[in-house]
Amino acid sequence: MDVALDQPGLFQNQQGEQYAPAANRLAPPRTALLTRFRAVRAASLEMCRPLSVEAFRIQPSEEISPPWWNLGHTSWFFVRNVLQPFGGAQEPADDDFDYVLNSYYASLGERVARARRGSLSRPTTAQIYAYRASVDCRVEELMLALDEPRWADLAAAIMIGLNHEQQHQELFYTEIKSILAQNPPRLRCGYLASPPVPARQASAEALRLVEFADGLFEFGHTGAGWCWDNELPRHAYYLRSFALADRLVSNGEYLGFISDGGYRRQSLWLDNGWSVAQQHGWQSPMYWERVDGQWWAWTLGGMRQLELDEPVCHVSFYEADAFARWSGETFDAQRGARLPSEREWEHAAAQIADDPADAAPEAFLDPCRLHPAAALGHERLRQMFGVVWQWTASHYEPYPGYLPFAGALAEYNSKFMDNQRILRGGSCATPRDHFRRTYRNFWPSPTRFQFSGIRLAQDLED
Amino acid sequence: MDVALDQPGLFQNQQGEQYAPAANRLAPPRTALLTRFRAVRAASLEMCRPLSVEAFRIQPSEEISPPWWNLGHTSWFFVRNVLQPFGGAQEPADDDFDYVLNSYYASLGERVARARRGSLSRPTTAQIYAYRASVDCRVEELMLALDEPRWADLAAAIMIGLNHEQQHQELFYTEIKSILAQNPPRLRCGYLASPPVPARQASAEALRLVEFADGLFEFGHTGAGWCWDNELPRHAYYLRSFALADRLVSNGEYLGFISDGGYRRQSLWLDNGWSVAQQHGWQSPMYWERVDGQWWAWTLGGMRQLELDEPVCHVSFYEADAFARWSGETFDAQRGARLPSEREWEHAAAQIADDPADAAPEAFLDPCRLHPAAALGHERLRQMFGVVWQWTASHYEPYPGYLPFAGALAEYNSKFMDNQRILRGGSCATPRDHFRRTYRNFWPSPTRFQFSGIRLAQDLED
Amino acid sequence: MDVALDQPGLFQNQQGEQYAPAANRLAPPRTALLTRFRAVRAASLEMCRPLSVEAFRIQPSEEISPPWWNLGHTSWFFVRNVLQPFGGAQEPADDDFDYVLNSYYASLGERVARARRGSLSRPTTAQIYAYRASVDCRVEELMLALDEPRWADLAAAIMIGLNHEQQHQELFYTEIKSILAQNPPRLRCGYLASPPVPARQASAEALRLVEFADGLFEFGHTGAGWCWDNELPRHAYYLRSFALADRLVSNGEYLGFISDGGYRRQSLWLDNGWSVAQQHGWQSPMYWERVDGQWWAWTLGGMRQLELDEPVCHVSFYEADAFARWSGETFDAQRGARLPSEREWEHAAAQIADDPADAAPEAFLDPCRLHPAAALGHERLRQMFGVVWQWTASHYEPYPGYLPFAGALAEYNSKFMDNQRILRGGSCATPRDHFRRTYRNFWPSPTRFQFSGIRLAQDLED
Amino acid sequence: MDVALDQPGLFQNQQGEQYAPAANRLAPPRTALLTRFRAVRAASLEMCRPLSVEAFRIQPSEEISPPWWNLGHTSWFFVRNVLQPFGGAQEPADDDFDYVLNSYYASLGERVARARRGSLSRPTTAQIYAYRASVDCRVEELMLALDEPRWADLAAAIMIGLNHEQQHQELFYTEIKSILAQNPPRLRCGYLASPPVPARQASAEALRLVEFADGLFEFGHTGAGWCWDNELPRHAYYLRSFALADRLVSNGEYLGFISDGGYRRQSLWLDNGWSVAQQHGWQSPMYWERVDGQWWAWTLGGMRQLELDEPVCHVSFYEADAFARWSGETFDAQRGARLPSEREWEHAAAQIADDPADAAPEAFLDPCRLHPAAALGHERLRQMFGVVWQWTASHYEPYPGYLPFAGALAEYNSKFMDNQRILRGGSCATPRDHFRRTYRNFWPSPTRFQFSGIRLAQDLED
Repeated sequence: MDVALDQPGLFQNQQGEQYAPAANRLAPPRTALLTRFRAVRAASLEMCRPLSVEAFRIQPSEEISPPWWNLGHTSWFFVRNVLQPFGGAQEPADDDFDYVLNSYYASLGERVARARRGSLSRPTTAQIYAYRASVDCRVEELMLALDEPRWADLAAAIMIGLNHEQQHQELFYTEIKSILAQNPPRLRCGYLASPPVPARQASAEALRLVEFADGLFEFGHTGAGWCWDNELPRHAYYLRSFALADRLVSNGEYLGFISDGGYRRQSLWLDNGWSVAQQHGWQSPMYWERVDGQWWAWTLGGMRQLELDEPVCHVSFYEADAFARWSGETFDAQRGARLPSEREWEHAAAQIADDPADAAPEAFLDPCRLHPAAALGHERLRQMFGVVWQWTASHYEPYPGYLPFAGALAEYNSKFMDNQRILRGGSCATPRDHFRRTYRNFWPSPTRFQFSGIRLAQDLED
Repeated sequence: MDVALDQPGLFQNQQGEQYAPAANRLAPPRTALLTRFRAVRAASLEMCRPLSVEAFRIQPSEEISPPWWNLGHTSWFFVRNVLQPFGGAQEPADDDFDYVLNSYYASLGERVARARRGSLSRPTTAQIYAYRASVDCRVEELMLALDEPRWADLAAAIMIGLNHEQQHQELFYTEIKSILAQNPPRLRCGYLASPPVPARQASAEALRLVEFADGLFEFGHTGAGWCWDNELPRHAYYLRSFALADRLVSNGEYLGFISDGGYRRQSLWLDNGWSVAQQHGWQSPMYWERVDGQWWAWTLGGMRQLELDEPVCHVSFYEADAFARWSGETFDAQRGARLPSEREWEHAAAQIADDPADAAPEAFLDPCRLHPAAALGHERLRQMFGVVWQWTASHYEPYPGYLPFAGALAEYNSKFMDNQRILRGGSCATPRDHFRRTYRNFWPSPTRFQFSGIRLAQDLED
Repeated sequence: MDVALDQPGLFQNQQGEQYAPAANRLAPPRTALLTRFRAVRAASLEMCRPLSVEAFRIQPSEEISPPWWNLGHTSWFFVRNVLQPFGGAQEPADDDFDYVLNSYYASLGERVARARRGSLSRPTTAQIYAYRASVDCRVEELMLALDEPRWADLAAAIMIGLNHEQQHQELFYTEIKSILAQNPPRLRCGYLASPPVPARQASAEALRLVEFADGLFEFGHTGAGWCWDNELPRHAYYLRSFALADRLVSNGEYLGFISDGGYRRQSLWLDNGWSVAQQHGWQSPMYWERVDGQWWAWTLGGMRQLELDEPVCHVSFYEADAFARWSGETFDAQRGARLPSEREWEHAAAQIADDPADAAPEAFLDPCRLHPAAALGHERLRQMFGVVWQWTASHYEPYPGYLPFAGALAEYNSKFMDNQRILRGGSCATPRDHFRRTYRNFWPSPTRFQFSGIRLAQDLED
Repeated sequence: MDVALDQPGLFQNQQGEQYAPAANRLAPPRTALLTRFRAVRAASLEMCRPLSVEAFRIQPSEEISPPWWNLGHTSWFFVRNVLQPFGGAQEPADDDFDYVLNSYYASLGERVARARRGSLSRPTTAQIYAYRASVDCRVEELMLALDEPRWADLAAAIMIGLNHEQQHQELFYTEIKSILAQNPPRLRCGYLASPPVPARQASAEALRLVEFADGLFEFGHTGAGWCWDNELPRHAYYLRSFALADRLVSNGEYLGFISDGGYRRQSLWLDNGWSVAQQHGWQSPMYWERVDGQWWAWTLGGMRQLELDEPVCHVSFYEADAFARWSGETFDAQRGARLPSEREWEHAAAQIADDPADAAPEAFLDPCRLHPAAALGHERLRQMFGVVWQWTASHYEPYPGYLPFAGALAEYNSKFMDNQRILRGGSCATPRDHFRRTYRNFWPSPTRFQFSGIRLAQDLED
């Protein structure tokens, strides 16, 4: 069987031209990819170990999937995009679960409504674990057996599957945070055994601004590593001079916004943002609760008093934007403040010596905290990676010359380039080898359940 | 501790007058009640034995609670209405679970929103089982220890708790039927091991009408047995002469309505009914599916082809009413047809020798079928009890002189006497010792997930 | 042309049997009916004289039609139910306007969605006036020209059209009250030139209870006068002994309910009522506003300070029911209080010497006030007619043996016998010759824009 | 009175710096501005002359205001932004109507909910005309009387008011098109006396592509003319090489999309677009109707058969985007097709000799047609201005270095820079002196009631 006739390579357009950078086509050695496959797949299971049988099935709202689905969907992805196109072994479960594990790929057939995932008692969690194990076996078999000419294509498909699964690993942490938060106070307990220990108790240093000169710069992925289609092509863009805050906005600073009436002053908000805030009755970031005059926040380790020098988190784009406008009034009345554009952020990140994709794992904080840490150290730019995703002012649009993946995976990114905002940086829940300075995360403006925070920017005078 | 000062007896009004019939005040012997308590409580656990851990947590819609909640709520009912008022032992779980297990009793405090029960992962199913066991122990202790003067009050409260639990046992069957129906066809399997075997294959006999003369008759509960507050007081009511069908409407007859355009002819429907039918796109009873030109129906034993001589089931009041109007056109153009009033039904039921509450269990069909059976035998009136609940034309209103239970239990029935319709008879899912000819079941007109069907009636000329 | 073949008489059932009382078949003399026709038709125009061209087109919500529609629809009713079936003259406008002036008669064809009436700029108000004039001419022609054998049928159809128009005349007052209330305070002005002058300033006398003995009584219309199909047939019903308040609940008494937390105490409310009240944020009757610590109310003559001894008005069934329950706590803790059933009200009304249908017009207050007056005089039962409609505890159901009008007019009443409550008595906005003690008005429980108020009742001990 | 202390000039930031281009600060001579003021104000009245008294009050949906409001609001704008800050004469109506004529300026106080404008019968249309006349007098007085030092500020404010009114003049045409379309077919008549005569009957020529080389170009307003704050500042941007279609997409081409299943193929649509299309049941552009196998379209002159070579109009961004994707499949499978970015459009428009703002009025088609015309002539780029607004792929974002107007007018543009798409070009309903090649129109993606159409673009290979 030769799928090439029916299905172009993932980095071909419909006329068969190659358009992806060489890097994505450089097939890794089989054993190296096998090792990585096992590591990523095992990590998903490891994450689920603390879960009760109950927590596996909960879907608190349409946007949050139950953990069983997460485990199943990431396996289904290999069935449809690896096993089936490359002639791997088939199992009856592939057909049985196809309908419930498809997320939104219209080209891969009908699927259960997203909001109904929490209404299913089948497949059982045990069935999903068995399905995962079966998929793993079959993918490994295929990796060992496929003939050399098609290895590069297979490797490319597997790399997408692994990066997809890592996205769901991050999603998992934000979903389980929401799932466990549903329980009423007397019954609520965290995913971790205890709340995160604050990194330090010192108060936050005043925010400093780092300045960047104007110029025509290059943006988008380059080099030997892997990337998503939406990080391409590399392209030129002219930046005006600007300044970027050296660290994230802290909880303490955000409390200033709240106490100054930030949630009641319509003039600070975008029109859409004000509507959403009124509709939901927002008065503080998500997961904050005021108990006996003290602010507490829900963490993956349970409730904990708010740490003032930790970065504010779980704010929507609208809150980030309103905070920036308010901040401009007080913090620099002369020039105001705003959110950075995604290219300003990327340009600044390129000043930091290494791309995080190349950094050693030790460069990151303890990944088991799953909570954003206060700013430490004295680098010029701090908290760029691995703390919270940073809302940018940029709507999610294709880069000039963008070509989506071919075939079913064209739906992966391109269908969502409408009315969403780009976030950059990666958070405390992002897998360690999943950071890139060109990485474009995107969510609708009202989203708050992600680890999303604020970095300020400013115009400089030309 | 003497609760009498704070809380009047359940059958006292606020001035302390007794108003309940002597029967409800006749305290049963302790051992008899203990035996009954154990039997009813055990039956709820027995029902849940076939459930997967997943099925326990599913809430497909606001009106259908997950099974864990059902088990917990029926225990909570004893905590709040038996253990606490009568000084039984307390446990920390009583406080922990109070918020999530209260259904709607405003007088018993705050509670989790009904639609959020399916979003909770706590209490776990195991915690609920432990809570049940603890409640059972403590109630039994109390039953053995309480002093004689207060025994009658305690027995009355326990009787309400047991009748309440039996209502939830019936609810459980209808809820699990809906829960398992959520799974997509390839994954769907029933609560029972196999579909119900049809009672017989013979075609249904033509419907006969049984006539009843007019007169001033008595209605409402009487005699030595227990009853709900809404079955009282016994009162006089004048009935015109009428006729009642000797059996329920069959699936075959209902197919006639469908094929004659019943779901498309607005003139057959009440105005509200037509709106609801359009909004939901109703084209057949709930749980019917048309596959390759054949009608199938979802049962508690899985999918099964439609049996034409079984009674139609899972229809709303609006469908029952429209069917009756259509039926009048063809079946008796002279006098038309309609649904019976609740008192016509009760008067007719009184003609059957024994009240079902007094009948031996053997009088009923195999309770394990959980599916309505076709009409058998040659009694004058068939299928009055234990097949499907029969929609009546009567809105749910208090009987003249009605007094609700005192205290928190006043909310049990009286708050719902608005815009609901009475159903009579009991269904194949009703516990065997829970039938009464004066029993008033009630649901909003659009309800379809209950075992609800149709018996026709007709005016006679005076 | 002989319509009899296609369309049975209005008081025939489908088999042609007469079932209406002789009274409705007694055709009035032509000149008498012509006089009445002109009077009723002229009254609708007279009502609209104070309207601005703008007010004619406003539809503030789905349930409130703009005045142009009201004028048009009552004319359309004669086109479809009088001119067409009896061979009257036709005009092109009959076809042009048919689609927009049909209210809900499915059997009379498609129609514009009810909520879209306010979106139409055609037909213009001038077109509607011309249409009305044309219909009047043609109906009068027909009344003079039709041959004697068919006169009785024609007269019956015209009588229905006139009674229908009178219902819309009352509706008009309640609709224009709502329409003018939409304008913001600085621009708001009333339908009448000035607010109603209070009847007197004396404080309300304490409420007295009038007792009625039990017995088997007759209900429903009887005698020589005209009535709707839903007032028939005359039938027997057994009433327990009861007491009825001698007057309506006053604004002052209702303020007691408010200040005692009536709108915040869930235990006072039906479950549905509490939901509706929360959803709409009800804190007082409709049209009440609190300005600088004083209560004001919107009247058809503009804003006016609340008069404490006038009857409370513009309350929903749910508020009336909650008030009665609250009232029982304080006013008669022994026996409580409740709303009367519709038959209790009718039985009591029959004790007043004359049916209002027979009373001289002078018996009523000045109809130009359009505002409920305080209780005056010393009759045993006061304010039974012509003040506010009085919510009863009875759902709207057909009387036993009920037969709807035949043909298209079957939809007039019968399609709405679901989840509505009966009101009795007639209000200050009801046309003077439109009262009857058997008159059954009906509205959904949450309705507040009608002139609807409260009369209390009580059980007596047998 | 000196407002300067309280309110900075419109082109000052909060620190008082001037940032607007010299052009906007060059105050025109008083007589020239007076002439323009009279012309623009008169045009609004002229537009309303064909309206019936009914059409003035209709609000078919929240986004479409009734004409009376349009006339009032554009006058209110002068009261709040010209008369009050510059000390013009005051009238009681200014206060009376303030609440209902404010559109969304939170900083200018409370206002009537946008969706309720159609529920007001006050102010009457006559009151609005009187208010307009009074405002005109007072503004003219102020223009003649104000001292020279403040003339430039006054002129700037009046210029904004006039440009604002011209935007509402265009809105008026699209609103009245929708308002008159509400009437049912038999009663529907147009705003113009007759449908637009097609420019010619010849079939459309094949679409040609005009190529543009890459480079770093300048964008945003420049020169001596007036502009909105969102067209500034002038800034550099790097464009890749691209091609732009020489004309708009025609109705005939769009029919190809429909007949090829364009509205049924999910893969052609953005995810949000598909949802919206399903929700509203879109099957064709707005205002198209299929009658007896022929396509008709509603125009401002009534219903007319669809002209195949006229440009498609009244499509949402989602339809434009899906059409472009579909078009790429067939029309150029090699490189596909897409919508242009707003800067690609502006760059191409700069190739046309004159900015339309400088063109003589005769350059435009007959403005009384109010309907988009087929492509004529042989210019390199046709139909760039004055036919339909052309959806671009660009979300509405501030230009780098953007500063909103100061004071209340900061809300004019900046609050809406979220989840909207830019349209360029101006339409057949745009006032003749209101075009600019830098003009940025913006609407939410689902919008269809504007004259909005499609111009295709394409990537070129570098």
